[in-house]
This record gives sequence, C-alpha cells and structure tokens, in this order.
Amino acid sequence: MIVIIGLGTAAVYATRWITSLNRDEEIAIIEKHEYESYSPCGIPLIFEKSGNFNDLKHPFPRTKRIQVYLNYMAERIDPNGKKVFIKNLKTGEEKEIGYDKLLFASGADPFIPPIKNAREYVGKGVFVVKTLEDAENIEKYISTGVKNVAVIGAGAIGLEMAYALKVKGLNVQVFEMFPQVFPRALDQDMAKIVQDYLESSGIKVNLNARVNEIVVENGKIRGIETSNGRYDAEMVILATGVSPNTKILEGMVKMERGYIVVNERMQTSREDIYAAGDCVIVKNFVDSSPFVIQLATTAAKQGIVAGINLAGRNAIYSGALGNFVSVIGDLEVSAVGLTESYFANKMKVVSARGKTLDKPEYAGGREITMKIVCDENGKVLGAQAIGRNASREINVIALAIKAGLSAQDLSALETAYCPAVSDLYSIINLTADLILRKINPSSYIF
Amino acid sequence: MIVIIGLGTAAVYATRWITSLNRDEEIAIIEKHEYESYSPCGIPLIFEKSGNFNDLKHPFPRTKRIQVYLNYMAERIDPNGKKVFIKNLKTGEEKEIGYDKLLFASGADPFIPPIKNAREYVGKGVFVVKTLEDAENIEKYISTGVKNVAVIGAGAIGLEMAYALKVKGLNVQVFEMFPQVFPRALDQDMAKIVQDYLESSGIKVNLNARVNEIVVENGKIRGIETSNGRYDAEMVILATGVSPNTKILEGMVKMERGYIVVNERMQTSREDIYAAGDCVIVKNFVDSSPFVIQLATTAAKQGIVAGINLAGRNAIYSGALGNFVSVIGDLEVSAVGLTESYFANKMKVVSARGKTLDKPEYAGGREITMKIVCDENGKVLGAQAIGRNASREINVIALAIKAGLSAQDLSALETAYCPAVSDLYSIINLTADLILRKINPSSYIF
Repeated sequence: MIVIIGLGTAAVYATRWITSLNRDEEIAIIEKHEYESYSPCGIPLIFEKSGNFNDLKHPFPRTKRIQVYLNYMAERIDPNGKKVFIKNLKTGEEKEIGYDKLLFASGADPFIPPIKNAREYVGKGVFVVKTLEDAENIEKYISTGVKNVAVIGAGAIGLEMAYALKVKGLNVQVFEMFPQVFPRALDQDMAKIVQDYLESSGIKVNLNARVNEIVVENGKIRGIETSNGRYDAEMVILATGVSPNTKILEGMVKMERGYIVVNERMQTSREDIYAAGDCVIVKNFVDSSPFVIQLATTAAKQGIVAGINLAGRNAIYSGALGNFVSVIGDLEVSAVGLTESYFANKMKVVSARGKTLDKPEYAGGREITMKIVCDENGKVLGAQAIGRNASREINVIALAIKAGLSAQDLSALETAYCPAVSDLYSIINLTADLILRKINPSSYIF
Repeated sequence: MIVIIGLGTAAVYATRWITSLNRDEEIAIIEKHEYESYSPCGIPLIFEKSGNFNDLKHPFPRTKRIQVYLNYMAERIDPNGKKVFIKNLKTGEEKEIGYDKLLFASGADPFIPPIKNAREYVGKGVFVVKTLEDAENIEKYISTGVKNVAVIGAGAIGLEMAYALKVKGLNVQVFEMFPQVFPRALDQDMAKIVQDYLESSGIKVNLNARVNEIVVENGKIRGIETSNGRYDAEMVILATGVSPNTKILEGMVKMERGYIVVNERMQTSREDIYAAGDCVIVKNFVDSSPFVIQLATTAAKQGIVAGINLAGRNAIYSGALGNFVSVIGDLEVSAVGLTESYFANKMKVVSARGKTLDKPEYAGGREITMKIVCDENGKVLGAQAIGRNASREINVIALAIKAGLSAQDLSALETAYCPAVSDLYSIINLTADLILRKINPSSYIF
C-alpha cells in the first residue's frame, strides 16, 4: 500500500507512473479539498476571460486499486508503525491508514507576509490566489464595488492577476520590494521590457516598495502604506510566494527552511517516505545549488521520479531547470536556468541579448527578445525570452542546458523556417551568435 | 578577392560572416537576377494574402569592399588562372574577375519533369514557383479566367500553392506519384492528417498519379492526362523538385547526380572553390548518408561554414538535419531527421505517435500530433509533428538529434507551462513516454 498525501500535480503524475509500471499496486490518496486536482496556474486566465473556474478541475481517474479521500486532512504520521492518521474536515470522522511507502506531496500554501492587518483580513478584502475558493471569493468581492486594487508581489501570479483585473476595468497598481519585476526569473534589462508593457497597459508598477500596512477603516480596506507613501485600494492581492505544508513531518525527516530534503530518488531521510512537488527542496540542475521551485512542471517530474521508485523501479532526479513561462496580456515571458545577476558575485559569465522578429514583417512578425547566459567557454547556463512563442524558444535552451551544450551548438542549430510561422534565422541562432562573437572561438562546428 | 556566384541565402550568410570575421576582405557577387536576394519560401503566403511580391525582396547591405553584379551570369570559370568570366544579361557586356577563392552558391532551379508539353508551355499556362517573375506570371495568368488548376507534386511548395490558389477561389487538384503527400518528409500515417485537412478544405488529392501529358488544344492548356485518367485544368503548377545550377563546374570539380560534392569545410575537390546551398550534396547528420536538401536554413548554415573558412578561420559542417516546416492554411507541418519508412529495410527502429492539446481546452487548445522515431536504444533519429507551433516543438527534437540524445532525455525535459500558451505535459514529453514504454528501460534519469 502506497499512501500519497496531497492530490496536486506531483501526486497525479506519481500515481500515473506507479499504475503504469505496476498495475497491482494499492494507492490511497489524502486530499484536503473537496475536489480533486485542479490547475491553479489557470486562475488568472479564467479571470481575464471571465470564464468558469470549474473548468480548471481535472477528473482524477479512479480504479479499483486507487482510493481517494477527499475532504480529508492528514493529521499525524506514525513513521515507526507506518500509519497515517486522517480526519474528515466536514464530518470530523477519523481514520488510520497503514502504508508500506508514503509519498508526501502536500504542496505549499500562499505565504502571508508580516504586513500589518494582512493575516487578519485574508478573505475580507485581502486575497491570496491559490484555490478555486480564493478565485471565487475575489470575484465576489470585486462585485461589492472595488475600484482600486493593490497587487503585492511582481512575480507570475501577481502580474498575471494584475493584468486580468485591469482587463476587468479596475485600477491596478503593483508593489514589489525588489528594484524590478520578476526579480528571481529575469535580469533587470529583460524585466524592464515587461515593466514597460505593464505601464503601457495602464498598470502602475511601484518598485523598491516595501508594504508596511494594509490600511483598514471601519473594517474596510482603504489602502496600503508603503515605504514610498500611501496608496488607495479597496482590495489587496498578496502574491508574495508560498510556504510549504510540511508541519506534520517536522522532526521526522530532514528539512531545510521548512522544505523537505530529498535525495535524487526523491526519498526523504526516512527511506519509506518520499516527497515531491512544492514542499521539497531540490538541486538546481545548473550549479547544484539548493533550489526551491514551485512550478507544476517540476512537481510533475519529481512526481514521476518518486512514482517510478515507488513502483519498485529505478529513477534519478538530476535537478530542476526552473523552465518557466508567464503570459501577461499578449506578452509571453519565459526563462530557464540561472540569470546573469545570480552569478554576479559567484562566477564570470558571458551574456548577450538579441532582438529580432519572430517571423518576417510581411507575415505579421512581432518582436522577440532573448538573453542567453553562458560560462566563459560558452556553456549555456540560462536564458530569458520575451515575445510571441518565447516559451517554445526557451524549451530549446532548456534541452541545451540539460545536455551541457554551448552557444556554438545553438548557433549551429537548424531551426525550421516557413514565413507564415518563423524567420530563416531564429532568435536562438542570432542570440547565440552574439555570444560567439564575445567568446571568439578558434574553431566552429555547425 | 573572394568571388561568390549567386546571391541566395548561402551567399548572404557567407558574406555576413566573412565581413564580420575579416572586414578587409574584398568580395564580388555575381547574380543573374536584376534584384538582390529575396525569399522564395514566402511566395505562397503572399498569394494567399493577396500581398505584394516585392515585400519578399531583401536589401543587401553594400560596403566599399562588396561589389554586387546584378543581371550578370557567370559563363565560364578558369580554375587555373582563377578567373570568372561574366556577362551582363541585358547589355551583353562581358567582364572577367580574378579570385583568390571562389564560393559557388548558384542554387537550383525548378525541375521540369518529362511530361509531354511541360517544357514547351512553361510560362504559358504551365508554371514553376521559384522567382518573383514566376509569381507575377501566375497571378497574371489566373486573371485570364482560369477556373481549374492542377498542381503536380505534393511537397511543401505544391501544397502551399494549392491552398493559396484554393483561397483565391480556384478549383484545385493535387497530383502526386507517391502514395502519400510529403513523400520524403513524413511517414504515411502523419501524411494522412495533412491529406484529410486538404480534402476538408476542398482540395482534391490524387495519389499514385503519374502525369503523362499536359493536354493542349489550340495552344491552350485544357487538362492533364494521368495514369488514372484525364482531368480538366486551364493551369498547371509544377512543384516536382529542383535541379542544381552546376553546369559551368562540370568536369572541374567532383559531382554526384549533378550536385557538387563538398568536404566538411564546404570545399569542393578544388581547394580554392567552395560551394554551399541548393547546389551541393552533403551528409545527412543522422546516418551520414548522402543528402540533397533544398532548405533556406541548411543553405544558411552551409554559407556560414563556407564564410568562416573563406575568412581564414576554421569551421566544420557536420551534416544537415533537414529541419523543415510547411504551413498549409492553419495547419503547421514540421519534421526533422529521418522517417520510420526511411529505415524500413535498413535498420530496426522504435516509433510512437502521440496526440494531445497544445494548451488546455479552456484556454483554446488545439490538437497536435507528434511522431518520434528512435533506434532500439531510444536514441532519437527523427520526428514529425502536425499542429499549432509544430515547428517550435520540432526544433527541440532537432537539438536532441544534434546532441545525440534519447527519448528519455525528451521525457525528462521540463517544458515551460502557462495555460495561455501551453499545457503542463507537452507533446514532446508525452510522445517520448510512449517510446519509453516500448523500450522499457531498466532505469530512468530525469
């Protein structure tokens, strides 16, 4: 019997691979929501298109050997007796389930920063964006007459929600304590392109802005008080990262900063307990540094690796690339690996930024910008791209990083060309060439 | 002094790299057209959108050290005296130009198959599709009251033109002597998807159809006579491949099937004469077999390699992948490497065909199909994809082939996910998994 705690992406993919490799395995899945897995990443898009949040739910395939406990919370684990104690959040009913192996995939919940009134007003004018209930509550609250929204945090969720709320007719301001948007994924030169787009879309972006207080009068949100002054707002969106749901494992397995430490088989420090997804700390593939990354795609890969091992086969997780894309209006922003600024005080790198049209002008080409970061020998360490199909260009770089390839390999790559969809010399070729010029290799291989 | 014969893609890229590596180099370029380089691949798109064919022209950057001879034909080469004899096609004026090194990049012209009346009626109801004059002549001829068009050849140019002419309101039939469309680039199972699309767009596709005669009455095209009977047509488009423009090199350098043989530095059998683009025969990167491929992208890479070597540096061309895309209406068809059918009597391969949405249904996802072909150990040999952004998915596989990667590497690849543009589990991941299931590896690396 394998027990899985959490029915997010890691659990879904683990289950899929366990059953595909070993169809006799019994699996019990404990999920605190009353619905099965869903796509939190789709929430801003549904907002923007005024769609139906229920479209984000995925039916989870049941079989005779898969038992799903919805509305159940894992309250306690007995690692010696190999039992999980669970409780029904609606009825209060308690159960215990014995396991041979446990997969901990409980994810992470939005982090509520230490801003005065933030925690107290969550759900009452202050909102996080994670569950479908969060989304529905935001929608309801907007209809009570909200005009001004303050979005705190300029990462993917913050900016996608900012744009969606702007489309819905609200005045939106974004507040970010770092001096740029996407402070982790992008370098400042690339982030400026996103910022310009947001501003040209009528969204004000306040950088270097530390929010100290959510201003409340008569129980109503009235604004926020920041290091740069006070701003009016009747609603506040908190998009300031997450904290892992790992409390019940405390003292039982090795953790770092609250995240579960796993080996390359996705095992915790207890060999019967595996962990995957937003609650774990892994290695960054590029430089093997400790890496906390909350992407559905990394959760899926980790879930697959855990699943293969749980099924009695052998799989290795060699680290996360953090291949990411965010779509803000019609601006596609994508990045993989590490940024130039990450290496600032660590290692000398070579970077170049290229710009071209994604297809010929006569075919309706639009500007795409790419930055590639390499080591001094041209080995690719990271890349960022902004423009139509940016993420599919970045997928190529992701594979280059995974295979240890260099700018020369990217310069040499034949990219498919037909004017209706692409140009002869792609943004990858062009940007890689700019790196080559800086490196000036003694010979070239195409 | 470097003399370049032909101002197509290979010449453009060679010149760009020669001047970037050695700005003092003198270059003379001989071009038989009266305009500089242009994009032949864009002709069908301009037809379809009723655009302006002049938009396909590229200005070629002149410098003091670059002399371009437009309207000039290279008539003869003296390889011992190292001279090219050229003639102005308008004035008849003759010149000779001495060279230190010569780059032969004269391309290929449409092949006129041995069909009765074909050659005699070229330009008079029978058309090839290569130059801007060809395009303008087709447009003029249509306006004389053409209703039925027979397109001979179901490769990229044939099918793109067929679709464009259908959009313009003509009755279009395609005739292909092989039992499928895209007989070289696609396997039959994938080709069927394209065929179904063409037929649902109202274009009749006649396979296994050998055209014997273009039927002419009173000097007018009336139809075609095929192995399957007679079909009415007032216009015939020939899209039956090309033949290389290499006549003046005959007996001077080594050739194969009329194509110039080059080494990995893009040198011919005479070390002072380089060649690149549609007129050369190279190696297929996948299996090192002799490979004739007429793509702008392969011409560009070959031109770059020749250019680097001509500039006195060192570059190696390791073979062509043949990474290709054709867009027919809103169907994007892309392929790279070799097909399953290519290996039929050569080598045992493993292949799989996956199908999914390019992004979630609620975000407007559309079907994409991919086929991956691997050797028995899972090493990737080729791939084909049909659907939105198919070519950018295929670019990832192109890099995988170039780097010698396996289906496992593709299964392990983190692909960027945001519902507005992509789904969590990409077509690459999914199709690679299907290969893995067939191979059933003893261990997995993610």
